[in-house]
Amino acid sequence: MRHILIIGAGRSTTALIQYLLSYAAAQQWTITIADADYSLALSKAGGHSSARAVELDAMNAELRQSLVKESDLVVSMLPPKLHIEVARDCLQFKKHLVNASYTSDAVQAMNAEVRAAGLTFMCEIGLDPGIDHMSAMLLLDEIREKEGVITAFRSYTGGLVAPEHDDNPWHYKFSWAPRNVVLAGQGTAQYIENGQLRFIPYQRVFEQIRPIEVPGAGSWEAYANRNSLAYIPIYGLENVPTLIRGTIRGTGFCSAWNCLIKLGMTDELFQIPNASEMTFKQLMKCLTFGGKGGVREQVARVCGLPAAAQELDKLEWLGLFSDEKLAIKSGSPADVLEKLLLEKWKLGPDEKDMIIMQHEIEYMMGNQRKFVTSTLIQEGSNSSDTAMSRLVGLPMGIFIRHLLAGNDVPRGVVIPIQAEVYKPVLKELSDYGVSFKEYVMNY
Amino acid sequence: MRHILIIGAGRSTTALIQYLLSYAAAQQWTITIADADYSLALSKAGGHSSARAVELDAMNAELRQSLVKESDLVVSMLPPKLHIEVARDCLQFKKHLVNASYTSDAVQAMNAEVRAAGLTFMCEIGLDPGIDHMSAMLLLDEIREKEGVITAFRSYTGGLVAPEHDDNPWHYKFSWAPRNVVLAGQGTAQYIENGQLRFIPYQRVFEQIRPIEVPGAGSWEAYANRNSLAYIPIYGLENVPTLIRGTIRGTGFCSAWNCLIKLGMTDELFQIPNASEMTFKQLMKCLTFGGKGGVREQVARVCGLPAAAQELDKLEWLGLFSDEKLAIKSGSPADVLEKLLLEKWKLGPDEKDMIIMQHEIEYMMGNQRKFVTSTLIQEGSNSSDTAMSRLVGLPMGIFIRHLLAGNDVPRGVVIPIQAEVYKPVLKELSDYGVSFKEYVMNY
Repeated sequence: MRHILIIGAGRSTTALIQYLLSYAAAQQWTITIADADYSLALSKAGGHSSARAVELDAMNAELRQSLVKESDLVVSMLPPKLHIEVARDCLQFKKHLVNASYTSDAVQAMNAEVRAAGLTFMCEIGLDPGIDHMSAMLLLDEIREKEGVITAFRSYTGGLVAPEHDDNPWHYKFSWAPRNVVLAGQGTAQYIENGQLRFIPYQRVFEQIRPIEVPGAGSWEAYANRNSLAYIPIYGLENVPTLIRGTIRGTGFCSAWNCLIKLGMTDELFQIPNASEMTFKQLMKCLTFGGKGGVREQVARVCGLPAAAQELDKLEWLGLFSDEKLAIKSGSPADVLEKLLLEKWKLGPDEKDMIIMQHEIEYMMGNQRKFVTSTLIQEGSNSSDTAMSRLVGLPMGIFIRHLLAGNDVPRGVVIPIQAEVYKPVLKELSDYGVSFKEYVMNY
Repeated sequence: MRHILIIGAGRSTTALIQYLLSYAAAQQWTITIADADYSLALSKAGGHSSARAVELDAMNAELRQSLVKESDLVVSMLPPKLHIEVARDCLQFKKHLVNASYTSDAVQAMNAEVRAAGLTFMCEIGLDPGIDHMSAMLLLDEIREKEGVITAFRSYTGGLVAPEHDDNPWHYKFSWAPRNVVLAGQGTAQYIENGQLRFIPYQRVFEQIRPIEVPGAGSWEAYANRNSLAYIPIYGLENVPTLIRGTIRGTGFCSAWNCLIKLGMTDELFQIPNASEMTFKQLMKCLTFGGKGGVREQVARVCGLPAAAQELDKLEWLGLFSDEKLAIKSGSPADVLEKLLLEKWKLGPDEKDMIIMQHEIEYMMGNQRKFVTSTLIQEGSNSSDTAMSRLVGLPMGIFIRHLLAGNDVPRGVVIPIQAEVYKPVLKELSDYGVSFKEYVMNY
């Protein structure tokens, strides 16, 4: 018997758990699902004979460590800042670790020890990061094998709502952690384009956007996603003149979101005084600086827009100019916004999400300039069987099966960029209907 | 003998140390000056028989604790985030603590234990915070004693350069920690005006400014300083319709500084790649988004200004559009900016700084509406005997003498708002020529 421990049973874990359970009997696995919300863990275990649910507060080190100790492999689906606690346990008790989040400096710093212990801490093996790395490396390695020279790499991903259920002016509904959407873009985005480094502070990330054409899915826009420069050495693209990773949103989303940033609605570092007594309109008054006109005009001035602008329509649709109470007793503007969006951008039970991922690669093959786009479009079935859950969970599940089957995988703190990882994972993903369409142009 | 330990011997400590040394023999004090830079500590001790210099890395807990243990009172002049370490030592070894920084939540949380131990941790007893609290409380208490009802309290302070040495377009030179100037305004400013709460995120703090008229010192501007709302209960001004604390700068400073924020030059959270190879012009290219014209035009677009704007003149005067190398080998934009400003905004050896502090209070005395301004203008003598050093150091020194003389002072984690503290301190400050001019108007 092999024991798999999954810590955290949130919305991205459904497909992962179903995948692992489908193999549990044949592979002789037991699966422990641990979450602070016991009923959530229990529902994800679904009464399966190979699964058990455990109530676990992730900060309860004693119980967490006893669970890690009795497992062979641990999956951390916790919020990113908690991974380090689980990673320390895994190193102490010599267990493999898998997660779908960006590798923190603290986890990366454990690399030598993890490798020396013969362990694999596979990070960034979900969708974005995850499938983006694997599909990009497959394309890049193929081009390099044919001695092509890559001159531009652009990669965009968005977790969106399917067109048939796109019925709000933001063209957006939640298929993953709302908090991450509220705080998206904080920090400084970095990329290189035509040899020019670009550093974009938070207050301009949603201004400096670019239009994206997706074959089969129309026009979108993208904002720069975190530090793309870090992937230059990882992808083996030293001296590439252009490397950009971006996040896809519906056209018009970014300039309206930028208004929320300018207002201070994404600020999580201070508590609104008297939040329990306040209406949205009153909060808007606090976040503006008065002057002529009503609340819409005052917000427009802060945003540097005419009062008739479409961005203001989107804010009004959210109810920000209304006399409704804030619906939280205390918290920051970001807390208020998260609570509001949870309701306004809720994916209905029978509604489908949609993932778009698109790589755009320019390269020289001899004297021939080539341009390839590689596009993945995937829709979910409903609000619990989402494309997001599948595309985050399946790569993790496939890799776990691959690892526990005794296949050779890299050791240390790693991400899925080696052919011995991405080839089997992408191959099996295509069996699940997850595949990219490529278009190549010569010009 | 009583032993005073001063941890940190930076530019704000000169006057404090001179004050304490002037009383050392008569009061039977010894004074230990501890700093990571031994020669700096030695120069501040100045060969005085009651003083000794010690080399201390503030994070060396063992040496730090042994110094705290052998003292009667500790002054922390460390950067604010390090105060908590010294505060813990002081509680453990039962020593009084004095500092001139804003009280952190972590230090405030020690209040009950500090009080139970019969100790005084006097925080915010420098200039701003410090003299501002004391002079404000004196005014407010006087008005309240006469049964006046306060309807507005505005308080502004600036550490500036004296008019005779104001010879750069920013009208600013450094008289205190440059890092604090570079990071000023980060967080969310909060105040109340005419009953309307206002929350101003960082990206708007230097936009939503107000003009200030200072009797005897002309026209200035002020930006909102941190969370003014916290001082409503502290000053006993519950239900006051207007309470604002602000920072004074020369006219035109704030809109130009706002350009640096928009560019991302105050960002300390990422490291510039290849900083050692980069010129200022190249850095500006990285922080903008290209398009027509030269670097000045591109910066102007990011700032939303015409290329001829005075804000751009100020940036050009700093050398931001030049082919000069960055002069640091690695670091964040904030590191680059700090290094640049240290040179450009240096107070020459014989140049004088200037402090302006102005309270503006509106109140009702019966049916009579009254308006009082209370203004302190103080110039330094030269770049080491600054007004800043005097106005930060003297209140601390006077309070220390008062406390060690056995006078009754409040216990716990406190700030100087009680009459038994502010009265003796302000009285002795006036002996040093530090006094406010008041103008009262009826209207």
